[in-house]
Amino acid sequence: MEKLAALRHSLAHILASALQTTYPDKVKFGTGPDTETGFYYDVFFDGVDFMEKDLKTIEKQMWKIVNQNLEIKYFEKPVDQALAWAKGSGQTFKHELISDLKAEGEKTVDFYQIGDFIDLCKGPHLAHTGEVPKGSFKLTRIGGAYWRASESREQMTRVSGIAFESEKELKAYLDMMAEAEKRDHRKLGKELDLFTFSPLVGAGLPLFTMRGGMLRKKFEDFSLSLRAKAGFERVWTPHITKIDLYKTSGHWDKFGDELFMVESKVNGEQFAMKPMNCPHHTQIYASRPRSYRDLPIRMMESTTDYRDEKTGELGGLSRVRSLTQDDSHVFCRHEQIKTEVSALANIVKNFYSTIGMNDLRARLSYRDDSDGYLGEQAIWDEAQKQIKELAIENKLEFFEAEGEAAFYGPKIDFMARDAIGREHQVATIQLDFVMPGRFGLEFVNEEGKKETPVMIHHATMGSTERFLSVFIEHTAGHFPFWCAPEQIRILPINDQISDYVAKIEKVLEETTLENPLAHNDLRFTVDTRSESLGRKIKDAIAMKIPVVLILGDKDKEEGVVSIRLKDKEEKVKLSDLANYLQNLK
Amino acid sequence: MEKLAALRHSLAHILASALQTTYPDKVKFGTGPDTETGFYYDVFFDGVDFMEKDLKTIEKQMWKIVNQNLEIKYFEKPVDQALAWAKGSGQTFKHELISDLKAEGEKTVDFYQIGDFIDLCKGPHLAHTGEVPKGSFKLTRIGGAYWRASESREQMTRVSGIAFESEKELKAYLDMMAEAEKRDHRKLGKELDLFTFSPLVGAGLPLFTMRGGMLRKKFEDFSLSLRAKAGFERVWTPHITKIDLYKTSGHWDKFGDELFMVESKVNGEQFAMKPMNCPHHTQIYASRPRSYRDLPIRMMESTTDYRDEKTGELGGLSRVRSLTQDDSHVFCRHEQIKTEVSALANIVKNFYSTIGMNDLRARLSYRDDSDGYLGEQAIWDEAQKQIKELAIENKLEFFEAEGEAAFYGPKIDFMARDAIGREHQVATIQLDFVMPGRFGLEFVNEEGKKETPVMIHHATMGSTERFLSVFIEHTAGHFPFWCAPEQIRILPINDQISDYVAKIEKVLEETTLENPLAHNDLRFTVDTRSESLGRKIKDAIAMKIPVVLILGDKDKEEGVVSIRLKDKEEKVKLSDLANYLQNLK
Repeated sequence: MEKLAALRHSLAHILASALQTTYPDKVKFGTGPDTETGFYYDVFFDGVDFMEKDLKTIEKQMWKIVNQNLEIKYFEKPVDQALAWAKGSGQTFKHELISDLKAEGEKTVDFYQIGDFIDLCKGPHLAHTGEVPKGSFKLTRIGGAYWRASESREQMTRVSGIAFESEKELKAYLDMMAEAEKRDHRKLGKELDLFTFSPLVGAGLPLFTMRGGMLRKKFEDFSLSLRAKAGFERVWTPHITKIDLYKTSGHWDKFGDELFMVESKVNGEQFAMKPMNCPHHTQIYASRPRSYRDLPIRMMESTTDYRDEKTGELGGLSRVRSLTQDDSHVFCRHEQIKTEVSALANIVKNFYSTIGMNDLRARLSYRDDSDGYLGEQAIWDEAQKQIKELAIENKLEFFEAEGEAAFYGPKIDFMARDAIGREHQVATIQLDFVMPGRFGLEFVNEEGKKETPVMIHHATMGSTERFLSVFIEHTAGHFPFWCAPEQIRILPINDQISDYVAKIEKVLEETTLENPLAHNDLRFTVDTRSESLGRKIKDAIAMKIPVVLILGDKDKEEGVVSIRLKDKEEKVKLSDLANYLQNLK
Repeated sequence: MEKLAALRHSLAHILASALQTTYPDKVKFGTGPDTETGFYYDVFFDGVDFMEKDLKTIEKQMWKIVNQNLEIKYFEKPVDQALAWAKGSGQTFKHELISDLKAEGEKTVDFYQIGDFIDLCKGPHLAHTGEVPKGSFKLTRIGGAYWRASESREQMTRVSGIAFESEKELKAYLDMMAEAEKRDHRKLGKELDLFTFSPLVGAGLPLFTMRGGMLRKKFEDFSLSLRAKAGFERVWTPHITKIDLYKTSGHWDKFGDELFMVESKVNGEQFAMKPMNCPHHTQIYASRPRSYRDLPIRMMESTTDYRDEKTGELGGLSRVRSLTQDDSHVFCRHEQIKTEVSALANIVKNFYSTIGMNDLRARLSYRDDSDGYLGEQAIWDEAQKQIKELAIENKLEFFEAEGEAAFYGPKIDFMARDAIGREHQVATIQLDFVMPGRFGLEFVNEEGKKETPVMIHHATMGSTERFLSVFIEHTAGHFPFWCAPEQIRILPINDQISDYVAKIEKVLEETTLENPLAHNDLRFTVDTRSESLGRKIKDAIAMKIPVVLILGDKDKEEGVVSIRLKDKEEKVKLSDLANYLQNLK
C-alpha cells in the first residue's frame, strides 16, 4: 500500500507541475494528497477558465513529464528561505502553510522538486517520474473545495484523478465504476418502483412503495426469523422518549447534538426521537425482577430510529434520517457471552452467505486513548481480549482497529464484499459492560445475591435501508426468487385459456417456499392487458421478474408451463410446477 | 331514555335536598346533572369534612325523601326575585348562574321544589319522589371538580351516584363494573407480563415485553392478512415529515396544535411526527403516473402515529401517545367505491367475529352545519347518501350521527360489544373526495384524460394499543389459543422422560395453525424448574396458558399426552396431538 500511496502522491505533484507548465503564473497551489483511489490537487486559477475538456491536455502534459523520467528530488530549506520562495513565486497558499509551520516552531521545511516545479511536501515519493506505470492513471473530474475546508475562505478548484499500480487494475476499477453506475440503487429504485422521495415529506425520508415494501418486509422477516431460531423474542418500543433515558444511558452527552428533539406543546415536555434502541430495551429488562434462571434474555425488534443528518450528506437509501434497525439485545451472565456471541456470529454468516456475500471480514473494534469511553480500563482490556478470543474460536477472518469501539464497549464489525468487489460494513456484535450498570439492571444469582448482567448488542442488516442500498446494487435488481416483490408473472397468450390460468393460479396460491425464509407465500400477477406477447415479455424483463410463465393453447393441451428465467427457458409439467418453484434458487 | 334521564336528574335534586337537610346552611350548591350511568352534584361544603363514610347517611336520607313521595313541583320566578332568593339563602354559585341568565336577557327563571328544597332547573323531572324505583340507585363516590371547570375557580366536592330503572339493572351494572375491574387491562398487562411503562421513557409510551410483543404481532399480522387477501399491499413510510405535507392535506389547520413538532438542530428544518398516514400514502400514489388500469390501488401499513395527548388523559393502553394504526388506503374510481367498501366491511365483520365480538353496529358519521369541513356541500350530500346505501346493501345494523364525520368526508364507524356488554368504537371506513384533489393526484382514463381518484381510508383495529386494551378486557386475559403469546407449556413430572418431552417438542415444532391466521408456528415452553408439579400447574394457570401438557411416566408408556385446558382435562394420543391442537378454538 505504501508503494501505491507514493505513486498517487507523486502523481499529484506531476499534475501540479503540468498545470504550472500549461498555465505559467496563473495557478496558485493549495494542497495535493493521495486518496483511496488516486489523488487530487486543490488549486486556485487566476484568470483561467479551467474546464472538463482541459483535463485531456493536462493528462497529456503529465504523461510527457512521466516519459521524461525526471528525478523527484528531495531537499530542505530553512523556514525563512521557504517563506521567501513562496512570496517570490506568488504562492500565497503555500506561504500560509509555511507560516503555520514556522509558528509551530519548525526550523526547516521539506521540499520535493520535479524539473523546475518545486513543492513543499513530507513525501514519500517515487524516485523518478518514469516509475509511473504505463496507463496507470487518469484525470477524472473537476470539483470545488474551500481552502482549508472553511466556507469563509477561497473557493479552490479540485482536479482529481485515479491511479492504480497497473493499467489492468485501473481498467478493472473503471469497469467496476461503470458497473456500479448501472447498478445505482437510486436508479434501480425508480425503475423497479421500490421507493420514492417526496419534497413534501423531506430529504432522507424514503417512502417504500408496494414493491419496495414487500422487499423490505421479506428481509426484515428473514433477519428476525434467523434470530427467533436462536431464542430471540420480539419486543416493541415507541419511537420517542423523555431525554432522561439518554441522560442515564450516557448517549445524551455523546450524541445530544445529533438527536431530533420533539416538543410537546400540550404539556411542555421535552422528548427525543430514539437514535438507537438499547436504552428502551433496558427498560423492558427492568420492568420485573429477574433471576439467573431467566438469563439469557434475548430481545429483538425491527424498529425505526431517527438521526439528524446534514441534508447534503443524504443520498438514496445509503444515508437516511429514518433508519430501521433489525436490532437485538442479549442480557446474560459473563460466562454466557461466548455461546451468545457465537450464535450471533453464525446468524451473520448464514444471512450473508444466503444472499451471496460470502467474503466476510470481521473488524475487532477497540477503544483508543481518547476520552469519551465509559467504564474502567481493566474491564475494557478484558472485553477486548474476549472479543479476540471469540473471533479466533469462531474462525472469523479478522483484523484489529483502535478507536472504532462504541463508547460502552468493544465490538466485532462485519464487512461483506458485494458482487462487484466493493466492501461494505454490515453486521455488528457489541459487548457492553457499562449500560446495564448505569440503568441499575440486576438479576438474583444462585446465592440469592444481586448481580449486574452483561449486555450484547447486535444487528444483522444494520439498517434495513442501508442494507437494501447494498443489496439492490449487489444483485443489480435481479432479486433472488425468494425475496423478489413480484416473483412470478403469468402471460396468457389469449383469453381462451383463462381456465388454465386459473388452474395455475390455484397451484401458486397453495405453494409456499420454505427456504431461506419459512412460510413464504408466492407472489404472482397475471398480465391480462391487451398487448402483444412481445411487449408483455419486454415489460416483465424490464421489471426483472425472476419467473415469467408464458401460457398458450399448446401449453394447456400438453398440461405444461413454459417458464422463462433470467438466463434460460424451460417447460415444466403442471404437476411438477410447485416442486420446481420450491427448488428454484 | 328520557324517563331514565328524568329519574337520574330528580335523584340529583333529591341528593341535594338530603345534603341540605343533613348539613343545614353548610352546603352551597353548584350544578347537578344526570350522567350516562347516574347523576352527580357539585357542592361546596362550608365547614363540613365530608367523607366516603358519610355517603351511607346521605343515601338513607335520600330514601327517606323518596319514601315521603313528595311532589317535585315546577314554578317560575322573575329573574330579580330569583337573585334575591339566591342571595338570601347564601347560594353564591346559584347567584352567579342566575346573574348570567339575566345578562343573557332572561326575564324569568325555572325552579323545581322538593319539600322545602328549591333549585333552579330546566327539568324534566319525575312528578313525585315516590316514582324512584326501589333499589334503583346508589351513591358511589366523592371526587373533586373546579367550579365551572376552571382551575382558577373554587374547588367543589362532586358527590356521584349511579341509577337505573330497576334494582335488577343496577345490580347488573354493578356486577359488570366489578367484572371490569377484575379484567382491567392495566392489571392484567402487569400480571401476564404484556407491557410496561418507564418513567425514563414517559407517560403514554408503552413498551411491549416479549409476551406482549408476540400478542401485538399476531394481531397486526391477522389484520394485515385479511386485507392482503383483499388485494392490499404493504407500504412503508417514515414517522416524521416536513409540515408542508400537512399544510397541503389540510391537517395543519385542523390539528396543528396536537402535533408533536420535531426540530432539526443540524439543518434548522421543521418536521412533525405523523399523527395519521393518509398524507404519506398520497405521496406513494403520486410517485409515478397512474392509469385507470392500475386502479384500485390498495395500500396498507402497520405503523405508529404520535399524538400529543395531555398527561392526565393517558391510562394504560386505552389512550397513548404512540398509537399504531393498521391503516389502509384505497385509491379508486367513483364506480369502484361500492365493491371496495363492501370488501372492507366484510373484513371488519370477519375480524370481530373471529374474536367473539359479534354484536357490531355501524355509526354513519355525517357532517353538521359547523365550519371546518373541506369540500363542496353537494359532494358531501352525495357521499353521505352513498354511505347509507352501502350500509343497507351490506346489511349493517346502523344508526346515523351528525357532526361525527372526518373533515374530508363522511365515514362508517363500527362499534363492537365486549364480553361484559360494553360497547367500543373499533373499525372505520371513510370516504374522501377532498384529499386526492389537494395533492393533485391523478390517473389517466380510457380517453387519455386526467381524472382525480377517490380515496377510502380504513383501519380494522384502529390503534393496536387501544384494540389490545379492549381485547385483554374482553377475554380477561384468557387469550384464544391461536394468539396467546405462550400457547403451550409442557410440565414434565420428572427428568426420566426427557426423551419423551423431546418427541413432543418435535411434533410441536412441526405443527402450524392455519386458522384464523395462516402459517402460525406453535409457541411453547418446557418448565424444567425443580419445583413441585402443583406449583408448576399453579404458575401456568396464573399466566393463563391455554394449553398445559402434563407428562409423566405413564403418559410416555402409553404414548399419550395429558392436556389441561382452562375448563377441562383430556388425554390425547401423541399421534393425534398435532391435529388436536390445530382444531382447538
